Amino acid sequence: MALIHTARDVVAPDYSPKLETVLQTAEFDRPTLVVDTDIVAENFRALKRGLGDAAVHYAVKANPHPEIIARLHAEGCGFDAASRGEIELCLAQGIRPRNISFGNTIKRERDIAFAHQAGITLFAADAEEELHKIAGAAPGARVYIRVIVEPNGADWPLTRKFGCAAERVQPLMQLALDLGLEPVGLSFHVGSQTRYAHMWSDTLAQVARIWHDACDAGFDLTLLNIGGGFPGYYGDEIDGAEPYAADVMAQVRALFGPEPQIMAEPGRSLVANAGAIAAEVLLVSRKSDTDLHRWVYLDIGRFSGLAETEGEAIRYQFETPHDGEETGPCILAGPSCDSVDVLYEKRPMPLPLSLAAGDRVIIRGCGAYTSTYSSVGFNGFPPLDVRVI
Amino acid sequence: MALIHTARDVVAPDYSPKLETVLQTAEFDRPTLVVDTDIVAENFRALKRGLGDAAVHYAVKANPHPEIIARLHAEGCGFDAASRGEIELCLAQGIRPRNISFGNTIKRERDIAFAHQAGITLFAADAEEELHKIAGAAPGARVYIRVIVEPNGADWPLTRKFGCAAERVQPLMQLALDLGLEPVGLSFHVGSQTRYAHMWSDTLAQVARIWHDACDAGFDLTLLNIGGGFPGYYGDEIDGAEPYAADVMAQVRALFGPEPQIMAEPGRSLVANAGAIAAEVLLVSRKSDTDLHRWVYLDIGRFSGLAETEGEAIRYQFETPHDGEETGPCILAGPSCDSVDVLYEKRPMPLPLSLAAGDRVIIRGCGAYTSTYSSVGFNGFPPLDVRVI
Repeated sequence: MALIHTARDVVAPDYSPKLETVLQTAEFDRPTLVVDTDIVAENFRALKRGLGDAAVHYAVKANPHPEIIARLHAEGCGFDAASRGEIELCLAQGIRPRNISFGNTIKRERDIAFAHQAGITLFAADAEEELHKIAGAAPGARVYIRVIVEPNGADWPLTRKFGCAAERVQPLMQLALDLGLEPVGLSFHVGSQTRYAHMWSDTLAQVARIWHDACDAGFDLTLLNIGGGFPGYYGDEIDGAEPYAADVMAQVRALFGPEPQIMAEPGRSLVANAGAIAAEVLLVSRKSDTDLHRWVYLDIGRFSGLAETEGEAIRYQFETPHDGEETGPCILAGPSCDSVDVLYEKRPMPLPLSLAAGDRVIIRGCGAYTSTYSSVGFNGFPPLDVRVI
Repeated sequence: MALIHTARDVVAPDYSPKLETVLQTAEFDRPTLVVDTDIVAENFRALKRGLGDAAVHYAVKANPHPEIIARLHAEGCGFDAASRGEIELCLAQGIRPRNISFGNTIKRERDIAFAHQAGITLFAADAEEELHKIAGAAPGARVYIRVIVEPNGADWPLTRKFGCAAERVQPLMQLALDLGLEPVGLSFHVGSQTRYAHMWSDTLAQVARIWHDACDAGFDLTLLNIGGGFPGYYGDEIDGAEPYAADVMAQVRALFGPEPQIMAEPGRSLVANAGAIAAEVLLVSRKSDTDLHRWVYLDIGRFSGLAETEGEAIRYQFETPHDGEETGPCILAGPSCDSVDVLYEKRPMPLPLSLAAGDRVIIRGCGAYTSTYSSVGFNGFPPLDVRVI
């Protein structure tokens, strides 16, 4: 029962009796993600207290289960969609189009048209061609321009895939105006898993320079989308959600003033600790007589839900029925015949020596970016099952 | 129309008028893999001619579409399954259990029991615990022991995830006997995408030493499973299927003699060139005024079918409506909001300067390891569609 002591000694709402009961006692025929929406709601409230008057748009891609969407909607949360599929999902939950943004900078023109017809008015763009598509399929829409920022030391710095360089912002805003669109502001992404609020400062300063330059040039900017990057807990210390968000907002207001509407797109931080995967050990073995480490094969791997172990980026916490007993180093791998389906090899994981096939393993912090990464049926294994409680 | 001139000037059966017609003229609402089973059948016949009296078990995981399974079954092919799901798929096609092997070394005990009850008698193992599971759930089964071999220079050398060291083979065979199982032989994997037959020689020599040592120790070995590794065409020269297979078989017989039954598990080589994906350009952009390369975003990426671009390992061939026009270097990326969803960045791909959103792109050599790697709905995008012709 490792409670999370953060830098400010705030304890995250990590364990719930309801979740524990299901994880320990339910029968599962295959790897199953169990998500407690009460934890999701608690996460939202904590973040919202810190963010104050900012509009929160949950990044649906983190976990699009309809019950999670419905619960966040009931809590007053807005939504950011990456695709037509996510928009349809939100609309099916009764969410009003004005509370949905279409934040993917890479959109199919007919999906923009679908969103426009559904009543969505806020779109992201980072390129000329994207603005042309939006102007054609969603005339008059509000657009924000996504900018590239320099890496800040986040656990997962973003590549240059999204955003444009600073010098392109004003030409794109001018093009938007010329095309009859409304360029309302800027967005950026500070980097996934930015574990401390102070890590935002350089990024915010970069964006503030671009913002004020555009305002000085006569553009009427009213919306700053600060994106995501709020961390989930994976074993390394993180700031608590409320003080973290409050700190970020204080920095934002100091740099951008009181006027702009602020919008945030948390995903991972709202759902990661709300879910755990119940999995099973399939095999424990040693490859040779002299190997010091064992290989532990689970019934879940990189292609059935744990995609974020790629490059050993996200290090999940594991619990076994033998915790507390003597441990030894293990390489963890998935069940498929794919040799890259290995979870942790460079940094072997200490696991009990008595671990054996058939043991249930609980993998913590799996509420975000697991179920939808799951393949449709790689090696004939069914997708990760999801049970929302 | 780049025909494939191999080292021996054998032209692979790469293009078919049927496939071309569908790729160029059909309407697709989303990225779609089109597979021509006539090419699959041709591939099988060519490989079989080279392999002679070896038993061919198609590695179902390469592409488990029921029509591919049915066609290969009609051609006289056997099947190797990685899971209960793949076994059920084969049985549903009327394939006899004796023509199905359960070749995953990591099996759930109740899946072994299912296979045993279905009549399957041949199983892979590389560890003590696996033999105990097989003995418990499939008493009396035939087992072959998978051994680890040293890398041979294959495009994708396998890790140590599968197999055991040489010194463990005889103890495992003895354990199998003690448990009432029938240890019939050995298996190994030469490495994915072993492009030339001569690259098999070192590996076969290693395995032959292990084989003869076991025979000398009194084990009655009758089955050598040479696994997969037969290459598909991805732009780099490969040997033609028939001479390649004949060369490998000649090496095998020289080292192992005429008696052992030989079994092979081709996957990729039977289906890769039989399929192509019809995709669409969503956006072409430059990130800054000084960038020499463009970013080209497709409606398909690493999480919707092109997983084997991880680490830029498999380099697919692309065709566009503007081929022949002036080109420039492009970074290729998928449509999701995930920054790792980038296909080719280290080695940018030359693509026509006139390429634009809405253009259809044909991605060649996609028959293997695409559709099943596809996620169930990452970012709200549906899985790769498959159309078998």
